[in-house]
Amino acid sequence: MLPSETHIKRVVIENITPEIEGGQFPIKRTVGEHVVVEGDIFADGHDAISALVRFRHEQDQAWTERAMVEIGHDRWRGTFRVEKPGTYHYTIEAWVNGFQSWYRALHRKTQAGLDVTPDLAAGAAAFEQVLPRASPDDAQQLQQWAQLCRSEPDLPALLRDEKARTEIDARLMRYRTPEHSTMYWAPLNVVVDPLLARFGAWYEVFPRSCASAPGHHGTLRDLAQQLARIADMGFDVIYVPPIHPIGQTARKGRNNARRAQPGDPGSPWAVGSEAGGHKSIHPELGTLEDFQYLMAQARALHLEIALDIALQCSPDHPYVRSHPEWFRSGPDGSIQCAEDPPHRYEDVYPFDFTSPQWPALWSELKSIFEFWVHQGVRVFRVDNPHTKPFAFWQWLIPALKRPWPELIFLSEGLTRPGPMTYLAKLGFTQSYDYFPWRNTKAELTAYYTRLTTGEQRQYFRPSLWPNTPQLLPPLLQSGGRPAFIMRFVLAATLGATYGIYGPAFERCEDCAVGPGSVDYLDSEQYELRCWAWDAPGHLDDLIGHINRIRRSNPALESNDRLLFHPVDNDQLIAYSKTTADYRNVIVTIVNLDPHHTQRGFVDLRLGSLGLDADTPYLAHDLLTGARYTWQGPRNYVELDPQKLPAHLLRLEQPPPSDLPP
Amino acid sequence: MLPSETHIKRVVIENITPEIEGGQFPIKRTVGEHVVVEGDIFADGHDAISALVRFRHEQDQAWTERAMVEIGHDRWRGTFRVEKPGTYHYTIEAWVNGFQSWYRALHRKTQAGLDVTPDLAAGAAAFEQVLPRASPDDAQQLQQWAQLCRSEPDLPALLRDEKARTEIDARLMRYRTPEHSTMYWAPLNVVVDPLLARFGAWYEVFPRSCASAPGHHGTLRDLAQQLARIADMGFDVIYVPPIHPIGQTARKGRNNARRAQPGDPGSPWAVGSEAGGHKSIHPELGTLEDFQYLMAQARALHLEIALDIALQCSPDHPYVRSHPEWFRSGPDGSIQCAEDPPHRYEDVYPFDFTSPQWPALWSELKSIFEFWVHQGVRVFRVDNPHTKPFAFWQWLIPALKRPWPELIFLSEGLTRPGPMTYLAKLGFTQSYDYFPWRNTKAELTAYYTRLTTGEQRQYFRPSLWPNTPQLLPPLLQSGGRPAFIMRFVLAATLGATYGIYGPAFERCEDCAVGPGSVDYLDSEQYELRCWAWDAPGHLDDLIGHINRIRRSNPALESNDRLLFHPVDNDQLIAYSKTTADYRNVIVTIVNLDPHHTQRGFVDLRLGSLGLDADTPYLAHDLLTGARYTWQGPRNYVELDPQKLPAHLLRLEQPPPSDLPP
Repeated sequence: MLPSETHIKRVVIENITPEIEGGQFPIKRTVGEHVVVEGDIFADGHDAISALVRFRHEQDQAWTERAMVEIGHDRWRGTFRVEKPGTYHYTIEAWVNGFQSWYRALHRKTQAGLDVTPDLAAGAAAFEQVLPRASPDDAQQLQQWAQLCRSEPDLPALLRDEKARTEIDARLMRYRTPEHSTMYWAPLNVVVDPLLARFGAWYEVFPRSCASAPGHHGTLRDLAQQLARIADMGFDVIYVPPIHPIGQTARKGRNNARRAQPGDPGSPWAVGSEAGGHKSIHPELGTLEDFQYLMAQARALHLEIALDIALQCSPDHPYVRSHPEWFRSGPDGSIQCAEDPPHRYEDVYPFDFTSPQWPALWSELKSIFEFWVHQGVRVFRVDNPHTKPFAFWQWLIPALKRPWPELIFLSEGLTRPGPMTYLAKLGFTQSYDYFPWRNTKAELTAYYTRLTTGEQRQYFRPSLWPNTPQLLPPLLQSGGRPAFIMRFVLAATLGATYGIYGPAFERCEDCAVGPGSVDYLDSEQYELRCWAWDAPGHLDDLIGHINRIRRSNPALESNDRLLFHPVDNDQLIAYSKTTADYRNVIVTIVNLDPHHTQRGFVDLRLGSLGLDADTPYLAHDLLTGARYTWQGPRNYVELDPQKLPAHLLRLEQPPPSDLPP
Repeated sequence: MLPSETHIKRVVIENITPEIEGGQFPIKRTVGEHVVVEGDIFADGHDAISALVRFRHEQDQAWTERAMVEIGHDRWRGTFRVEKPGTYHYTIEAWVNGFQSWYRALHRKTQAGLDVTPDLAAGAAAFEQVLPRASPDDAQQLQQWAQLCRSEPDLPALLRDEKARTEIDARLMRYRTPEHSTMYWAPLNVVVDPLLARFGAWYEVFPRSCASAPGHHGTLRDLAQQLARIADMGFDVIYVPPIHPIGQTARKGRNNARRAQPGDPGSPWAVGSEAGGHKSIHPELGTLEDFQYLMAQARALHLEIALDIALQCSPDHPYVRSHPEWFRSGPDGSIQCAEDPPHRYEDVYPFDFTSPQWPALWSELKSIFEFWVHQGVRVFRVDNPHTKPFAFWQWLIPALKRPWPELIFLSEGLTRPGPMTYLAKLGFTQSYDYFPWRNTKAELTAYYTRLTTGEQRQYFRPSLWPNTPQLLPPLLQSGGRPAFIMRFVLAATLGATYGIYGPAFERCEDCAVGPGSVDYLDSEQYELRCWAWDAPGHLDDLIGHINRIRRSNPALESNDRLLFHPVDNDQLIAYSKTTADYRNVIVTIVNLDPHHTQRGFVDLRLGSLGLDADTPYLAHDLLTGARYTWQGPRNYVELDPQKLPAHLLRLEQPPPSDLPP
């Protein structure tokens, strides 16, 4: 009938942040970041309490402790730093602090002129009670303090000294009785990824279009030739669509024609042919040695190669013959192709993830990732994860990250908010986001405020893509070069991680396959292209310039502290990012109208930028090099999209004498 | 390495409401109320899903099911009604609905003019697959449907009929495979209390002041004489301060004097003397038979008697001698009195709830409640619960409610918000709230909006007290009779549950013991009073009138749907309560200034009151009987505190001909 505990824990810990659904899902950080833990912590009555954040890396046995402090209204805060990839566990421990409670009562009684002899005697007894468990050094101290309490009729001077009390408190803390401590009930975890999980610029390119002359099928070695150029532009990740053999059966032709013509290369997402499946390389791209060569070249340039894993098969995939039970079959026994009624995708067979043979299937699919990890791949872009059971990812990603905590998985799950964010909770490192469909100031402000201030920011890392091979948004079709620059600046500054489908973006390719479509005309998905890499007028220089700005301004490395500022013109958007110490303050102002010059007054929230409203400050446009001296929150801006549709300002408040006149 | 489940559950259920901290704490309802359960429910891919709310009373074995419907954006909703006191368990079950998914694809393909023969064959096979598990009746149907699918080349007419499809769906639902269903992970519970837990008017009275002549110690039988009068005023609960023997040692005198004079009766909260402890009755109040007589009289008038349980002892309590180990003792072995340094309360010894002997102590304390429950008591007011360990209440209240689910516990835990609401989470049925310290329109609006719309409303039931024997708020000291009426109307209409310390309130007693104090002069806590029960000018009639209005207007039975309406005068506050069907709409408008007439325009949010803005409606003042015909949201009000500081309007939109001109 009585509670089963043998000791009563008097302290309550609740409303912890960050905590995702009672600790069911981990939060995410990158190496070197902090976790700020808060909780409501209180006890019955009026005693003083103490609280700690405790944390440990999954491979360490010992917990490390950090003191928490009350920030008001029973809310406590503590911070710890994560040092290496992998999973950290963290929790809160809190207890009634007898020493502090005792001292507080003593102090109040002394001030009221009451006799504190009995209280001092009680304190002495309490010190002595700890003796049997204390280290020799601590025991000596405890005895001294006890003696002090017994020998003085009034509050001992030592105790009046806050520093001395802090030391006593710290020594006594070592002998607290864990059976009286409250440990927070839920298991809390933080998955720690490499910096690239948070901050990186991605460049998508089809190796088969990297040949130096038209009509030739590009190879992995051709792509290797491009790496230096892409690295020079400041990219961190080269993402290549599936590099596996492409099926022949029901192969799609140019511009998604139902039937391929002789010579059409087919879609790389129709994975598998007689030449092999997900662990093979398309023969026309090269060999595993060529891939190794590519990886080595990339490594030398500090580039990561991101593979695209599309867990589906062409009808010619070896799995189809060896494991027909992994696919769904109709009443006549034939394997069913992908469908989104009334559409049918005859060149693709989806796996049946819930077939009775799922254990074998899942194990095999896991081995695909393992194969490529063994080839040195650390970054995966996962195609359509939202059409596979969530339980699969929830099992797969932690299983792969356990031995290789540095792995990065980008979710392409561009679907409704529920499933999309759930994939991030389950373990995806990054996610494509709704950037392509957020165009107006109101849309961008609402969306990125939510992503960067709500609970989602603890586990959902957006990757902002202005275009992909499957998506040429209407604005890019109609806005010309200014629209490309504008969307690029937005992606690269709103998002610590962003990416472009590079060759088409650099060239401001804006032809859709037809009116109302968002598909590229002559899409690389269905044919070879031959890009004139060095033709003039490309955005390469600007892209490289902005990537260099990203790398030299730490404010842009994170989405924390993204803040929007009012502008009295709806076509102008202004937002800032700062480092936690305000030593790097970047304000981006973008003209969202690719067709007209827009003017307005921006009202900077100076307090949130660490700037003093009464002192002039320097606004240094990192795009043009121009330097303006601004003062106060309200400043005029004018952006001509034909020149440059954006300011990328670093704000600094130097001594007035250092400001340009 | 693989997930341990043998079947893959494709549906995800998350963000359930109501749910308190992952189901760690129950929500609360009263008998006959509904629980509206919502959740984000989705699966991978594009299949149709179905979801149910399942619930059962703790004493029932079988679960009852209610269908959930999608209300948009993957959010689903289902409702169930709780019928009897006790704890109900509830959860959500959801699964991929094969029949609906199949039909949706079939329908789309038919519309696109595609051949659906293979799909119909697949459907027939699916129907037949269920046969072995089906009841004879269902089996017959299933065979007919299968035949239909096999015999027609096109979508069978039967399936085009939504009603027929619903029937098929309902039959198939019986044969869903639970191993593929997702059950929500957290255990969710709702504690169901009697209506009185939600809706009731309390009257606090000291039996010892119920004697009919001055200088006599009132008795329980004297209180019994008052019951009819109090019942006539429309009260539901008579709450009496502790009725146990009062200690002699360190007894407090009148007006909290440190020493009692001969004849001073002492504070009832200093429980225990040679005459007994918490299971005894103060000899001057009467005997257990007298208490039984009081209970019988109360029962006949449909009144509950609420006992005040103060878990603390006077130095003369029998426990002090028989169980000194249940108290805290100083270094010299003497038992320590209650302290809030520098204050000492020598007439009270607190229990040491965490003493090594806590199991025996806790069991004994539980037996106190059990003793009074066996005497017929169903309502307890618990003194200072926030100074006892939370673990004690978390154990005690469910342990007492298991055999007696109709018990009501009012928490007097008037402390900081964290511990105060935590006590409600742990099981207290009702709680005193901050009403005495919420006076301005802004304060009242913010506080009661939060209490009635935030998560708290699921478990925290406020009890609004304009005064208590320990609290005469400044406004009542300075505002005279208008202030008493104004605060009474606020308490009785903002709160479905409210209470008054009756005799002093009725008489508008407004003398504090000194300037700046909120203690009554000549407080009943320390002396006998003799109230002239029938003297004229009391608020009895008005109180009775308002209690009758509360009983005949179901909108006032609940705090759900409390809504504040703008008034262009900060001294006027307007708010409404409605039944869920808008058949009862009550708008209360109060002048918060007890000294001056206040005028203004109230802007009613008609849409939230179920009223049509273009049709006139009747505003019937239930306090005065006056009837106004109003139209549109904006209406003029003027309230003279010397006459009546409030309108209590019932709004009705009758046919225009029925409206007064």
